[in-house]
Amino acid sequence: MADPARLSINQATTREQHSLADAIKAYAEHGVAGISIWRDKLAECGLDEAVELVRGHGLRVSGLCRAGQFPAADAAERQRRIDDNRLAVAQAAALDADCLVIVAGGLPEGSKDIVGAREMIRDALGQVLPEARAAGVPLAIEPLHPMYAADRCAVNTLAQALDLCDELGEGIGVAVDVYHVWWDPDLDAQIRRAAGRIHAYHVCDWLVPTRDLLLDRGMMGDGVIDLKAISAMVAGAGYDGLIEVEIFSAENWWKRPGDEVIETCKRRFQDCV
Amino acid sequence: MADPARLSINQATTREQHSLADAIKAYAEHGVAGISIWRDKLAECGLDEAVELVRGHGLRVSGLCRAGQFPAADAAERQRRIDDNRLAVAQAAALDADCLVIVAGGLPEGSKDIVGAREMIRDALGQVLPEARAAGVPLAIEPLHPMYAADRCAVNTLAQALDLCDELGEGIGVAVDVYHVWWDPDLDAQIRRAAGRIHAYHVCDWLVPTRDLLLDRGMMGDGVIDLKAISAMVAGAGYDGLIEVEIFSAENWWKRPGDEVIETCKRRFQDCV
Repeated sequence: MADPARLSINQATTREQHSLADAIKAYAEHGVAGISIWRDKLAECGLDEAVELVRGHGLRVSGLCRAGQFPAADAAERQRRIDDNRLAVAQAAALDADCLVIVAGGLPEGSKDIVGAREMIRDALGQVLPEARAAGVPLAIEPLHPMYAADRCAVNTLAQALDLCDELGEGIGVAVDVYHVWWDPDLDAQIRRAAGRIHAYHVCDWLVPTRDLLLDRGMMGDGVIDLKAISAMVAGAGYDGLIEVEIFSAENWWKRPGDEVIETCKRRFQDCV
Repeated sequence: MADPARLSINQATTREQHSLADAIKAYAEHGVAGISIWRDKLAECGLDEAVELVRGHGLRVSGLCRAGQFPAADAAERQRRIDDNRLAVAQAAALDADCLVIVAGGLPEGSKDIVGAREMIRDALGQVLPEARAAGVPLAIEPLHPMYAADRCAVNTLAQALDLCDELGEGIGVAVDVYHVWWDPDLDAQIRRAAGRIHAYHVCDWLVPTRDLLLDRGMMGDGVIDLKAISAMVAGAGYDGLIEVEIFSAENWWKRPGDEVIETCKRRFQDCV
């Protein structure tokens, strides 16, 4: 049974119901310990206002979503993206976020060269990392499910993410999201390997059938992921930080009242995670 | 440029247009060298009739699709599935198929135990393999994309499939389908490891965006897979058998005239594979 004091909700879970200010207020009212903030919502709110709101409501920021998106067809665009990652590091520092989540990016427009995209990711992370270290912001590479390799993220397994971390050194680790990694035959070994480098742990569920590649994630308990088994692996690797509920659900949870979604997250977190 | 003499078409590519008899006739008329046959279509046609038709039209059978589907909630159902796999071995032998494709199966109804499902797969393959060896039918484990782990196949990487082959010994190898493996950061190394054990090579393309998890595969050249790079890896591992076009495409290719689909397969095979 997951400790309710470790519950964080990723604001994408109520992205259709709440602005950032509304999400902060609602989560705090329901006694949720943390929030993970999206940068598009942060931009609407303004950084100073957001910092004041999370402090004022006593919320911890389990992560800032998201930086990364490094591969691009030309050098100028790649530089623009690196600069945007630097801005994200500064935002994460201001929010005192537990980590900056890196969704590395997929193939550049028109490209079929996934090996090249992966090299761009490594090189760009190498450029952003010194500033992240200086700011005290851990970078968390989030391997995304292989079904997103083309258009969202060419880092697709924990093994691959940890190989990157090995190469890049201190200050960079991983975000373990059950949705992306539950299927991995090597999951247990790679989570053990990640000990000391897990900066975030995200939960939701895999629905059968899944009707949309992006926006049909399930509430914990409604799908087939053995959440308790994965939570035990993550705990076994020493992770004791916030546990974040992140559900993209265009046809179900995004259409329900925010209060109902939050209460369901709380209940399922205790029962299923 | 792929050798046209190596083109096989998986009959699923024109499954809405053709019965098995019609597919055999149409592919042969268009000068296609091989066909991969599905067992539901085979059942409609009858085995003896199918054997006569492929021989009469001079087609090679690049594979019989599909056996596997081993995990089940109770022992009686698991045994029923093993028996069905034995029948499939006999069918593949009668058709002189290059291999019997194994799509191993996903989670049993109501189960979240993917580790257990994988054990069921290994145990069942161990029971089917002696008969496949005796019949001279190579078993080809097809790792399916991780997005099918829950409901179709819990073997999701080439590494995992080859670990199974290592454990099981002679007479079993893999089917490499670009759709399922193109994203794998370890692809090059695992295809090299598969040398001598590649029994089938399947091509199509990954569309961006992909609108359906199952039935939105693309024609070669319409997506983002670097087909020539993967073909070079497979050739480098010594595979020189038929190359099979397998496209599930409910909203596009299944709605076009069969002749148009076959001609497009031929042209794209030469240009893109």
